[in-house]
Amino acid sequence: MIIEAVYHRPGDQYAYACTDEMLHIRLRTKKNDVDEVVMLAGDPYHWEDGNWQNQEFSMWKTGTDTFYDYWLVTISPPYRRLRYGFLLKDESESWFYGDKGFSKEVSTDIGYFFCFPFLNGIDVFNAPEWVKDTVWYQIFPERFANGDTSNDPEGTLPWGSEEPTPENFFGGDLKGVTKNIDYLVDLGISGIYFTPLFKAFSNHKYDTIDYMEIDPQFGTNEDLKEMIETCHKNGIKVMFDAVFNHSGYFFPQFQDVLEKGEASIYKDWFHIKEFPLTTEPLPSYDTFAFTPFMPKLNTEHPDVKEYLLEVGRYWIREFDIDGWRLDVANEVDHAFWRDFRKEVKATKPDLYILGEIWHDSMSWLRGDQFDAVMNYPFTTNVLNLFAKESISAKEFVENMTSVMHMYPEMVNAVNFNLVGSHDTPRILTECNDSIEKVKQIFTIMLTMVGTPCIYYGDEIAMTGEQDPGCRKCMVWEKDKQNQEMFQHVQKLIRLRKEEPLLANDGVLSFLPIEDDNPIVGFTKSNGTETILVLINTKDESYDYSIPFNWSNKVVKDVWKH
Amino acid sequence: MIIEAVYHRPGDQYAYACTDEMLHIRLRTKKNDVDEVVMLAGDPYHWEDGNWQNQEFSMWKTGTDTFYDYWLVTISPPYRRLRYGFLLKDESESWFYGDKGFSKEVSTDIGYFFCFPFLNGIDVFNAPEWVKDTVWYQIFPERFANGDTSNDPEGTLPWGSEEPTPENFFGGDLKGVTKNIDYLVDLGISGIYFTPLFKAFSNHKYDTIDYMEIDPQFGTNEDLKEMIETCHKNGIKVMFDAVFNHSGYFFPQFQDVLEKGEASIYKDWFHIKEFPLTTEPLPSYDTFAFTPFMPKLNTEHPDVKEYLLEVGRYWIREFDIDGWRLDVANEVDHAFWRDFRKEVKATKPDLYILGEIWHDSMSWLRGDQFDAVMNYPFTTNVLNLFAKESISAKEFVENMTSVMHMYPEMVNAVNFNLVGSHDTPRILTECNDSIEKVKQIFTIMLTMVGTPCIYYGDEIAMTGEQDPGCRKCMVWEKDKQNQEMFQHVQKLIRLRKEEPLLANDGVLSFLPIEDDNPIVGFTKSNGTETILVLINTKDESYDYSIPFNWSNKVVKDVWKH
Repeated sequence: MIIEAVYHRPGDQYAYACTDEMLHIRLRTKKNDVDEVVMLAGDPYHWEDGNWQNQEFSMWKTGTDTFYDYWLVTISPPYRRLRYGFLLKDESESWFYGDKGFSKEVSTDIGYFFCFPFLNGIDVFNAPEWVKDTVWYQIFPERFANGDTSNDPEGTLPWGSEEPTPENFFGGDLKGVTKNIDYLVDLGISGIYFTPLFKAFSNHKYDTIDYMEIDPQFGTNEDLKEMIETCHKNGIKVMFDAVFNHSGYFFPQFQDVLEKGEASIYKDWFHIKEFPLTTEPLPSYDTFAFTPFMPKLNTEHPDVKEYLLEVGRYWIREFDIDGWRLDVANEVDHAFWRDFRKEVKATKPDLYILGEIWHDSMSWLRGDQFDAVMNYPFTTNVLNLFAKESISAKEFVENMTSVMHMYPEMVNAVNFNLVGSHDTPRILTECNDSIEKVKQIFTIMLTMVGTPCIYYGDEIAMTGEQDPGCRKCMVWEKDKQNQEMFQHVQKLIRLRKEEPLLANDGVLSFLPIEDDNPIVGFTKSNGTETILVLINTKDESYDYSIPFNWSNKVVKDVWKH
Repeated sequence: MIIEAVYHRPGDQYAYACTDEMLHIRLRTKKNDVDEVVMLAGDPYHWEDGNWQNQEFSMWKTGTDTFYDYWLVTISPPYRRLRYGFLLKDESESWFYGDKGFSKEVSTDIGYFFCFPFLNGIDVFNAPEWVKDTVWYQIFPERFANGDTSNDPEGTLPWGSEEPTPENFFGGDLKGVTKNIDYLVDLGISGIYFTPLFKAFSNHKYDTIDYMEIDPQFGTNEDLKEMIETCHKNGIKVMFDAVFNHSGYFFPQFQDVLEKGEASIYKDWFHIKEFPLTTEPLPSYDTFAFTPFMPKLNTEHPDVKEYLLEVGRYWIREFDIDGWRLDVANEVDHAFWRDFRKEVKATKPDLYILGEIWHDSMSWLRGDQFDAVMNYPFTTNVLNLFAKESISAKEFVENMTSVMHMYPEMVNAVNFNLVGSHDTPRILTECNDSIEKVKQIFTIMLTMVGTPCIYYGDEIAMTGEQDPGCRKCMVWEKDKQNQEMFQHVQKLIRLRKEEPLLANDGVLSFLPIEDDNPIVGFTKSNGTETILVLINTKDESYDYSIPFNWSNKVVKDVWKH
């Protein structure tokens, strides 16, 4: 047994409360190395005749990736307290593993056991209920629909008349969304994630000028109210984009510093290294990346913090938005996000907080900061299989198993799955224009654990390279929309609503898969019902035997009927 | 190479900011398995010709325990941002390790590298400067000294006239401390940790009746002021004990619930399962352990929280205390402790927050909750070597290496090292009355990384079994105090003050040790000076060659001179 590969540490995805009563305890071992794992656990204060009392609980394997097996046991400690250790067995040896490491003998000293000291309700990760049943649609407002030409900025081009550039404008706005609500309802989505709507200089609006004002080119506060009401009436949630890492260059507070230098009352709102400010060869102030047009905000400063927290509260309080997506969330301090969570959840308890983080995000997902992150590890894995064809179906299953064992189960259910955004080439372009591949990708995304998001236009097979290419004007002419793709996505969304197992009900298990097997298969089961998803990832037929017995079961083909 | 044993995850002790500029990046590998580790790192936004730019940084081995080697590299990223991965090499192979796992090839995709997104100053772990130079002395107030017989409770026994029991009283008080300040100054300690002083029923005072009042048997607010001023004048910090997990049975709010049941306005201050309250066979309310006399407080309730936070602030504001030791800290919710930190640090920025947690405490030591915990893993390791003789000197060194790699370096420097307390048998009793062993133990504790604490009376070789035995009255008759022990401890404290390397200056490295070698040796070095500590843990002489060359160095015997 390679005990050095065994890993557990209380907290994170390894020991957490999934409800006010139940704990998940997980363990990682080297792949195919350990035959059996038993948890020895008991209440820390349950002693008899001077001996601490514990019981055995079998753990089961929940998945295997390239290098590891993962084990789980669920337990509801009657007094909400637990000390526990693991007994690992293979054919030839057995090891005990606890708070002070590994030993051949099971310790009789409770101090050698791991501890989950007390299940306090307030510390339980708690995302809004509605998120796990939501299908998102991402709108880049300047390019979705022009519903009101009177607010078009100067130089607005006719809709879709040119290729998108970093500078051009086509007049998309809020009225455009309101007027096309039937299209979205018809597609079936139940949440819209809007990239920034606040007044800004660029067409993407990530360079905010005023966080308290809708950009006039998108419309008025009345237009916004009408749009949100229309969405809500149609069962559609609305998520805004909070760009709090940096402001735009034309943010008046930054302009004040540019103008007055050290005399500006806003000089501590940013991270200034030297006065007067310079932008060449590198900015003399911290920025997003190295772009002088996005000065990093000093979110540790009390005034900046209060200003941004009020932004967080204001749009919920006044316009009843349902979620905040946090741009470049990983570069803002954790202390800020803890207070942000407190403030916005106090304003609206079931508000969804989604961080833009592309890498391992555990540090933000412990219940005190975000509800979820944009699940780019999911994206990478999908692209590697279908677009780059750099991994096999088996590797896809292994990598997806890794991704699903990175976080607690409740995080997985609300994590934001996407296969493209305004920051990436469009999925159809990634897949070399293969409609069939993109249909498979949507099938996976819309049957997988998590909350899926469709980037506007992907459902009608729009194409586009890395931005600005991926930000083309939405195509509204029916005959230029790919109806096969639309109907495929529409059907997947409908099925996901009809069959909760296709969304986040039940527990997902990947089916065993061999090296040359192109079939990605998984089940989701809630104990009484099981749904099976099988996807042939190759363009050729393959004989596949379903690896379980369903005689005497009622079987229904959900896809065909 | 057993790559499955390789571990890193950004955060915790593996990637953290140790100053506003510098990061520590650590990695764990299987013991003696990897020959060389190189970190590949760069700014996430530093691209040239479409390629992300990174550089190589060698890592060095900082220690080896029973199963693992630990590697470290320090780096000060110029823009406070870092993406990084590891290149692991042995004789026959090399592996890349990053955010998406292991691969034979170094990825060219930045997404496969780990991320430390931004070094925000406010998130840096930040304990008070003074703690790392402090030598603590723990006082159990009822048993240290009776300085004022007028406040003795009814039935107080003559000092030291009987063995301590859970019920008897000997009259120790605040005046007793003030009057004996010269003794403490002579010993050389620079901080006192007091077990609870607030009004309570028992002699140990962990069953609080009033958190806002000093127990009358200990004296008045004036006595307290005088004592704290006396301590401060003599360079001694004062730490109080906060018992916030539970109140005492006679806490008026709990008495109100006992009396009025569901009609009590305090019914939500506790965790009541059923009304009316019962205590048999088990309490119908949550308690500390299973004792009905310590009802668990509902620290999630806003009124309870505000009450306890005000307790936290009050004693700092009004009496200028320097630290709070938090009893049963692990069973109170994290949300409470985050707010507690904010409030007490706002009242006094350099207040020390010490949690009583016996097990792995990483979840409380991320900078948002505690500064340190009581380092019982240190205690266990010392007892196993000297008292139980269950491990060899080599195993001691390995276990201590584990303990020192559990947390970030800044935590180690302020972690509260102890070898006994009011909750354990006295160290001399644990060591079967061997004065020599206890002298060695103090030598280790007072030369080790961390902030050491001497339990009152251990310095004069008092004995005592598990409580109540370990809570005997302090012996004040000179001829009954072991002066050899006193002078030994006194000398160690003096040396620790004179030689900052003996405290927390410099970096500790254990010397290599073989199976049958009884010499525990370590160096601490600050780059220009190195101090060497050697302890023969056996009662027989042993020939030992110091495993490094000190020719051409100025060498001084700190112990003899």
